[in-house]
Amino acid sequence: MEILITNDDGWGSKGILTLTQTMETIAHVTVVAPDGARSGMSNAITVDRPMTLRLIEHTPTRDVYITNGTPSDCVKLAVNIIYKDTRPDLLLSGINHGSNAAVNVIYSGTMGACFVGCEQSIPSIGFSLCDHHPDADFSHLQPLIIPIVNQLLQRGFPDRVCYNINAPIGELKGIRFTRHARSHWEKEIAEFIDENGEPYYQLQGVFVNHEPQAQDTDEWALAHGFVAISPTTIDMTAK
Amino acid sequence: MEILITNDDGWGSKGILTLTQTMETIAHVTVVAPDGARSGMSNAITVDRPMTLRLIEHTPTRDVYITNGTPSDCVKLAVNIIYKDTRPDLLLSGINHGSNAAVNVIYSGTMGACFVGCEQSIPSIGFSLCDHHPDADFSHLQPLIIPIVNQLLQRGFPDRVCYNINAPIGELKGIRFTRHARSHWEKEIAEFIDENGEPYYQLQGVFVNHEPQAQDTDEWALAHGFVAISPTTIDMTAK
Repeated sequence: MEILITNDDGWGSKGILTLTQTMETIAHVTVVAPDGARSGMSNAITVDRPMTLRLIEHTPTRDVYITNGTPSDCVKLAVNIIYKDTRPDLLLSGINHGSNAAVNVIYSGTMGACFVGCEQSIPSIGFSLCDHHPDADFSHLQPLIIPIVNQLLQRGFPDRVCYNINAPIGELKGIRFTRHARSHWEKEIAEFIDENGEPYYQLQGVFVNHEPQAQDTDEWALAHGFVAISPTTIDMTAK
Repeated sequence: MEILITNDDGWGSKGILTLTQTMETIAHVTVVAPDGARSGMSNAITVDRPMTLRLIEHTPTRDVYITNGTPSDCVKLAVNIIYKDTRPDLLLSGINHGSNAAVNVIYSGTMGACFVGCEQSIPSIGFSLCDHHPDADFSHLQPLIIPIVNQLLQRGFPDRVCYNINAPIGELKGIRFTRHARSHWEKEIAEFIDENGEPYYQLQGVFVNHEPQAQDTDEWALAHGFVAISPTTIDMTAK
């Protein structure tokens, strides 16, 4: 099995190393990752400057490339420059340091990479842990990754559908198939004044779940100790 | 009526000026636009540096702000810093220089701004013209903008639904409600060699429509001279 791995925290983050070390026990892994943090990049692509692509590690089980591009660029570079006329059997993105559940899916670089994989008809799965800390503990999620991947591969990937998997911190109660909770962010901008008296702004925010009682949502699952698997489509047409 | 206008080509592009001049004949317009081109930014948000916001024009019918942020940031800055406890009646994004039809919707900064408006329960509409040229001719589309906006406001905006409107160049045959055509991009990366012999890469691509015969798609409408209106949801759960 040949697996393409990417993320939005960059090669050097604990999450992508955990995912790579896990998957190279059963497959050959090609990592194409950003050369630094690209959180909140959504499906952004680089159209205003040249992109780099550099092989920095080559072992029997892994090739690791880094690029100055976005997570979506990583998948496009892999498909067009590395794989050319072949395709990986699977694209995995993450493990992200931080939740990509609910409305966060539309801002997620982790899932942006999966959407490109999905566009290219590659089975694509994003993994995220609800902990932004650079030293986040993935040890409870790690043993579940291969079983979840195998189960999803057996179920199959419907056309233009990928999977957005989020895990809570702490003891796990199980795994649930979910939908993205209706939600929004508020109080999103903090205002500061610089040394010249000019204002500047930084993103922050308070997450608001519109339906905390709905037991079929990713947010409910996460709040109750379950890993949430949300089937996610790149067909954004409102039916 | 109070209208928020943004785009991804930046203030200074012909498309946003056309949209602003059109709407300020019937409403007060607040423009919050990027200070330069942000094409392909999707729903990206700025998390790694401070953002600016500067009022550069104030007339009885328009306030124009520019920022170093993304299209999505523009909407967040407008909602949190400019409107605060009020909300605009409408968010318009565009007119984009270039198509945002079919799979392009997931990469679109124009639509990324609409998705933030949609998250904030603001009626949101993106306009795009299938012509990347900076001096693109909007004169055939311009007279339709206010009638289309009025019709969509009368129909109403379902929860978490916005509209992705694309117009062809040349004579218009009419207006159709559509869905995003199944499609993908291929041959997406061009490889070059720099003066040091190092490779670098730029995005390009060939667009492939999987269903050119399907008359309910945006691509069919555009190819046959119709303005395509695709209802678009930010609920990406695959049902």
